Amino acid sequence: MSGAGALYGLGLGPGDPELVTVKAARLIGAATTVAYFAKQGRESHARRIAQSYLRPDCEELLLAYPMTTERPFYTPDYVEALRAFYAESAERVASVLAQGRDVALLCEGDPMFYGSFMHIFERLKSRFRVEICAGVSGMSGCFAAARQPMTWGDDVLAVIPATLDEEILAQRLGAADAAVVMKLGGNFPKLRRVLTRLEMIDRAIYVERGTMAEQKILPFSEKRDDKAPYFAMVLAPGRGRRP
Amino acid sequence: MSGAGALYGLGLGPGDPELVTVKAARLIGAATTVAYFAKQGRESHARRIAQSYLRPDCEELLLAYPMTTERPFYTPDYVEALRAFYAESAERVASVLAQGRDVALLCEGDPMFYGSFMHIFERLKSRFRVEICAGVSGMSGCFAAARQPMTWGDDVLAVIPATLDEEILAQRLGAADAAVVMKLGGNFPKLRRVLTRLEMIDRAIYVERGTMAEQKILPFSEKRDDKAPYFAMVLAPGRGRRP
Repeated sequence: MSGAGALYGLGLGPGDPELVTVKAARLIGAATTVAYFAKQGRESHARRIAQSYLRPDCEELLLAYPMTTERPFYTPDYVEALRAFYAESAERVASVLAQGRDVALLCEGDPMFYGSFMHIFERLKSRFRVEICAGVSGMSGCFAAARQPMTWGDDVLAVIPATLDEEILAQRLGAADAAVVMKLGGNFPKLRRVLTRLEMIDRAIYVERGTMAEQKILPFSEKRDDKAPYFAMVLAPGRGRRP
Repeated sequence: MSGAGALYGLGLGPGDPELVTVKAARLIGAATTVAYFAKQGRESHARRIAQSYLRPDCEELLLAYPMTTERPFYTPDYVEALRAFYAESAERVASVLAQGRDVALLCEGDPMFYGSFMHIFERLKSRFRVEICAGVSGMSGCFAAARQPMTWGDDVLAVIPATLDEEILAQRLGAADAAVVMKLGGNFPKLRRVLTRLEMIDRAIYVERGTMAEQKILPFSEKRDDKAPYFAMVLAPGRGRRP
């Protein structure tokens, strides 16, 4: 669209504001409009990470999810509500771009890796110029925070959402050399059952808010309760060739 | 070790110097000794990425691999040569640390994800203080460079080294929802055979030097020759729930 603004999808990393890239820090500092996702009534994680880089006069566009991520994924209601939310969010961003103003969409982690940004990108990429800035993924932040080498030699790494059905989760985890399990939240008891059955409890590490001041890291075997935030992760490091 | 220096494992991202994190840029700028790996007789990629952040007076420790990464992995000779190289490299780093000087080890991508740093970390972590700084992984750089959302909804991502045996490679790729194939180099013809057999050619994207000035990105179906650098990647994006 001639004369329109550009959309920037900026990966902000796992949570520590210093793990923002030099490029994202520069682009946030130049942005006159930033947009970010947040749960209804909650602070946006992405905005909190970006805070110190924001221009004091920048305009902000809050894209607030209509529901919790804890609801079951496959109900037609949920999918429809989410679809409508992404469509409406894309149009809110588009209306700023159409005025010839750039928008920096702030994304936790890496924008192209399980990111909400992807839903906006797919809807706007043919209508506007879009630039994408890779970020440190949440899982890379967890590897460093846990001081845990993850993949050696020929290890295959599987990144597995705990939202999968129990049998599929067991199958995918059992087949992996190294694994990262994401999207824990209410799926935690299911994951504990699967890890127990696969005799993986002693290899697994629980990481909550990796790289942030309030991070919590412990061997899975020492995690007594089944409470976990949605963005907590479990790591099962690989055991490949290690010369 | 009391009075000894600290080792910093700094992830520098996929290649674009602006994709270094604010934290790594600060730590490189403060480093009086940096160390980095390089192939024998070649420029170090990590040093090239860090170049603009280095202090002009910093001391440099080159850790030059004794062999090419193209040699078959499982010969006893290869494993032994690599083991000796990592042991010697760790001792060279240790001798600087023992003098009370810090060492920043510059790592391409993310240090805990298929990184040579892990071999030094395992050898020194009980003797010295070690700090790890996560970086943007090579694959995240490729997702952004290829403008390719990789994982949707419940997609499982598999990260697969092309060094695997042909049958195992086919099995792992066939089972993945989304896949990243790494370590191409001489393994490229094998990967082409496997992608053909799995009818994945039309989904696959070839990415060479993603995020760098000389990057080359094309649909796999348009890649006519079988030449690829070791650090090139093939992406097979997921096709999960996309509301």
